[in-house]
Amino acid sequence: MTSTSPTSTHQADARQGSNAVAHTAVTIEDTFWAPRLQRVREKTLPTMHEQMQLNNYFDAEKRGWKRGMHPIPYVFWETDITKWIEAVSLSLATHPDAQLEALLDKTIEFLRSIQQPDGYLNIWFTEVEPEKRWSNMRDLHELYCAGHLIEAGVAHFKGTGKRSLLDIVSRYADYLDQTFGVEEGKKRGYSGHPEIELALVKLYRATGEKRYLHLSQYFIDERGKQPHYFDEEARLRGDDPRDFWAHTYEYNQSHAPIREQKEIVGHSVRAMYLYSAVADLVKEEYDESLFQAGERLWRHLVSKRLYITGGIGSTEKNEGFTEDYDLPNLTAYAESCASIGLIMWNYRLLQLDVDSRYADLLERALYNGMLSGISLDGNKYFYVNPLESKGDHHRVGWFKCACCPPNIARTLMSLGQYVYTVSDTDIFTHLYIQGTGNLSVGGHDVQVRQETNYPWDGTINLEIALSEPVDFGLNLRIPAWCQEARLSVNGETLELNHVQKGYARIKRLWQNGDRVVLQLAMPAMRIYSHPDIRENRHRVALQRGPLVYCLESADNAVPLHHIHLPEASPLESHFEPELLGGVAIIQGPATVVESDGWGETLYQTTPPPSHAHTFTAIPYYAWDHRQAGEMCVWISTQ
Amino acid sequence: MTSTSPTSTHQADARQGSNAVAHTAVTIEDTFWAPRLQRVREKTLPTMHEQMQLNNYFDAEKRGWKRGMHPIPYVFWETDITKWIEAVSLSLATHPDAQLEALLDKTIEFLRSIQQPDGYLNIWFTEVEPEKRWSNMRDLHELYCAGHLIEAGVAHFKGTGKRSLLDIVSRYADYLDQTFGVEEGKKRGYSGHPEIELALVKLYRATGEKRYLHLSQYFIDERGKQPHYFDEEARLRGDDPRDFWAHTYEYNQSHAPIREQKEIVGHSVRAMYLYSAVADLVKEEYDESLFQAGERLWRHLVSKRLYITGGIGSTEKNEGFTEDYDLPNLTAYAESCASIGLIMWNYRLLQLDVDSRYADLLERALYNGMLSGISLDGNKYFYVNPLESKGDHHRVGWFKCACCPPNIARTLMSLGQYVYTVSDTDIFTHLYIQGTGNLSVGGHDVQVRQETNYPWDGTINLEIALSEPVDFGLNLRIPAWCQEARLSVNGETLELNHVQKGYARIKRLWQNGDRVVLQLAMPAMRIYSHPDIRENRHRVALQRGPLVYCLESADNAVPLHHIHLPEASPLESHFEPELLGGVAIIQGPATVVESDGWGETLYQTTPPPSHAHTFTAIPYYAWDHRQAGEMCVWISTQ
Repeated sequence: MTSTSPTSTHQADARQGSNAVAHTAVTIEDTFWAPRLQRVREKTLPTMHEQMQLNNYFDAEKRGWKRGMHPIPYVFWETDITKWIEAVSLSLATHPDAQLEALLDKTIEFLRSIQQPDGYLNIWFTEVEPEKRWSNMRDLHELYCAGHLIEAGVAHFKGTGKRSLLDIVSRYADYLDQTFGVEEGKKRGYSGHPEIELALVKLYRATGEKRYLHLSQYFIDERGKQPHYFDEEARLRGDDPRDFWAHTYEYNQSHAPIREQKEIVGHSVRAMYLYSAVADLVKEEYDESLFQAGERLWRHLVSKRLYITGGIGSTEKNEGFTEDYDLPNLTAYAESCASIGLIMWNYRLLQLDVDSRYADLLERALYNGMLSGISLDGNKYFYVNPLESKGDHHRVGWFKCACCPPNIARTLMSLGQYVYTVSDTDIFTHLYIQGTGNLSVGGHDVQVRQETNYPWDGTINLEIALSEPVDFGLNLRIPAWCQEARLSVNGETLELNHVQKGYARIKRLWQNGDRVVLQLAMPAMRIYSHPDIRENRHRVALQRGPLVYCLESADNAVPLHHIHLPEASPLESHFEPELLGGVAIIQGPATVVESDGWGETLYQTTPPPSHAHTFTAIPYYAWDHRQAGEMCVWISTQ
Repeated sequence: MTSTSPTSTHQADARQGSNAVAHTAVTIEDTFWAPRLQRVREKTLPTMHEQMQLNNYFDAEKRGWKRGMHPIPYVFWETDITKWIEAVSLSLATHPDAQLEALLDKTIEFLRSIQQPDGYLNIWFTEVEPEKRWSNMRDLHELYCAGHLIEAGVAHFKGTGKRSLLDIVSRYADYLDQTFGVEEGKKRGYSGHPEIELALVKLYRATGEKRYLHLSQYFIDERGKQPHYFDEEARLRGDDPRDFWAHTYEYNQSHAPIREQKEIVGHSVRAMYLYSAVADLVKEEYDESLFQAGERLWRHLVSKRLYITGGIGSTEKNEGFTEDYDLPNLTAYAESCASIGLIMWNYRLLQLDVDSRYADLLERALYNGMLSGISLDGNKYFYVNPLESKGDHHRVGWFKCACCPPNIARTLMSLGQYVYTVSDTDIFTHLYIQGTGNLSVGGHDVQVRQETNYPWDGTINLEIALSEPVDFGLNLRIPAWCQEARLSVNGETLELNHVQKGYARIKRLWQNGDRVVLQLAMPAMRIYSHPDIRENRHRVALQRGPLVYCLESADNAVPLHHIHLPEASPLESHFEPELLGGVAIIQGPATVVESDGWGETLYQTTPPPSHAHTFTAIPYYAWDHRQAGEMCVWISTQ
């Protein structure tokens, strides 16, 4: 965060990769996440299935889908089903549940019943307009649907050991492999909405079948080439390519080959899914030009187009990026799915190069922009996560385009995977969540137990459990938000002069029962914006630990834009166990400008008077759970 | 402006009306306006006619107008012709010009040639879709066109003494009188775009024919009644009234009868033209409920929905009003025509009640929001007058919808009328412009000569010329922006304790050669916004005399949003004769925040550093005359 942060020297260091750890290897046993995950299992997942039934997800006819509809409906609805399958499968992997599993089997049977003899599987293009298969890959999401289906198949296989859905998706993927590619007779197409690319890497990793990896590489390499596939495809349909509603292929990141892309543009979820796949491919077969493309886009994102909440996408128009420093608060798009995509991408980047700037951003999106997407009780959702509200923005139970709810569910159900990655010689700790990681380093089983009240408190106690002493490096992320960290091993203080790319590395012959204590100072802090973010002129945000805060009318009985936070006023924080499921609030002295006494005029020669006010700020993720009212993240200074 | 201004006690006083003075009675001989008016005569009026010819205004076929076009083109283009006729006629009244008069005659002959036997006159509904006459009064501007035609006819008659156009418009008005009204067999319609109402009052005043006044009263009284005419008319066309694109009759101020309207809403030009007519009708036949309606709407406008420039209309969507205090700067609409409408309305209100709050607002719109609409060289125009620009907003030579250019021209050509109004006992001086007013008070001719360098200097020397001593009250407006005024008669200081509703009244037996000196202190001032205008939080505007100022990139070589104006820093102003045709600029010390050294991040824990900067501000009306760049009226404070 600051220029003196431990991450500042990362560019000089060599890259060090790490490997993913399955979510099943990490237990979540804290008071912050564990109750949330339980609510997802017990409430979110069953009510989602009810919502899908209510909305006739399993019956195209009842759903009202008809040939020639204009505009074409959300033909990608089936991804809500497949993301739900993925979320349930991830849950079953750690928490068996016969009822949910039966629901899953029934849903998979539905999918099996509509798979075509050649392996193709898509509700709209099977039941409504079969002759239009692959006729509009720019807009109609067939490969996007295929991707989520494949992710579901892999998760189901891993979570239940059953091959039922994996076999279906493998047949489909084989058909795709025969259909797309540079070889004679194959289509040179790719998907307007990326997703298939990362899914095929997952399928490759689950099955070992290299053709899936190669198909993913094809989709990545082909994208943006000239003559442009979407132009040709449009002409084949009898359409003029210039009539593309978005007016630019930046919208779907096919404006240029990926290795030539220099700026993060277009629909933000598409960008995140695409560049996640790019990172996956670099991980599988190292490719410097692809790595550098991703790196360049990442830097552009974080230096010009990122909300402090880890939200991305500044406008509803393209559900995506606009211009540098254009980060409006009230009209921010910041789709929940885009923050999830940001988590996915940074998680993959951490595997290419263990650098805390990726984990910092993953944490920022996880605790703020993503988490705000689901209500505390687990059954209402934000699609859009603005940083300011006049009081008319509220979570709802379902959406006509309901991509976000099951996406949030699958993200939470896989939370464990984000805590650690490992290499042959090292364990990397990215997130601080109470629970146990059952890891493997250089062939040795190592158990790491975290005890902590994070994110409310910055003290993390780690205990190592081993059957025999093992020599490895334990790397602990020092978050960029932390300006004062202390570390000890078995009671002995360690100097923090071995922080590399944001990780304090403790290399030693670890003994069973070794104890490490990391203390991250976690005061409430003011955060300032780059001077070119016009909306945030004369404003500060408040942050404590990984949590970004906001003001809400429920705590501040004056118009929020009347509140000014003087530069030098102290910030105090304490935990309120009864508030919003238990949150640390931030309070302090502020002033409130008065609009009384202005009379019937808008402009006058003296500034308005002010009076004292004690403001209260709550974590951003917890807003909109009380009476409807204003909210703002960026608070006026004085 | 301030709560201690001389206008603060107006509510307690009785109303005093005054009468209009023709623009021909007042000469303009200063260095500010006179050269502008000369450019309008010599350049603006001829080039406008060229633009209309270039754009095939006089040939519907060449213009490409065809039956059944969708969307329907700007069928009200003919009002550009008629407003041009009005502007030329106003000019000819004071500056005969054979060439312009010949052009006028030819244009009037064109209009005569398309007038129908029944008196009807409209290009679209005569030449393209005659069967659709009066079928869509909500959208298709027939009566709006009729109104501008009538205004042109009256101005032409007054300016040239010729009846050629007056006869045409009288025939048309007679046909309208036979067509619309509450009587059996007449249509109960009125115009979606007001204009006919004020035009009919003008025609009544020019001809003495009461039926025109009564028809105007009918249109005002009928508007907004239930069942709603526009609903019924839509159903007659086979349309569903709910499909009205604007979704609300607030758009055209027909959502309620005028006497019941409480808030200023909808399309801002329509509102101004409508309420101007309301004031005209009150002037002709006093009606307390109509007067109070206008007064209520005026108060709502100035207390909630007015830009500091005298611009009105916050959004392009409805070219009009939005919500209270919603006054964005970058996306302000503030159409030139709307500021003109504001001038028209306040000029009429001054005739109902001589109160300087009306003249203050008239002056504000005249010197700022209207004047910015035309380039210094008189041949490029703004349609939209934002209060902030990123550098991409520029005046152009013509518009597809070119309502503003001829509207500005006719306003400037009639400027003299706004300087004075009179009553039987008093002369009221509203504007300070060097020149001579040839007035009449209680049957006596009185000449008032102003010598002043206003708006650059606040000293106004007035000399009274009379053939014999006359007893009358000379009222001089003390502008609300002025915090220190001095007044003397023949060298003897007068105490300013007789200021009533913003006018210092000097009642005496005036002698030929009496001299009055008014000194209005005119320092550069900071202006603050109502705290509920969110965009102007922590910002000040600069004003000197009636002129609102702005920063431009041309004078300030840093991003304008990086400039901060400390609260206590002094403001200096001086006249620059070579700059922008001669302007007083405002300068002073400011600070500039630095964005260098932030590195690749958007957010950090310390505010950006600043360095000193001397800012330069120019009058708002003069912006966008040098290299393209940013502009802002509201400047950050520190």
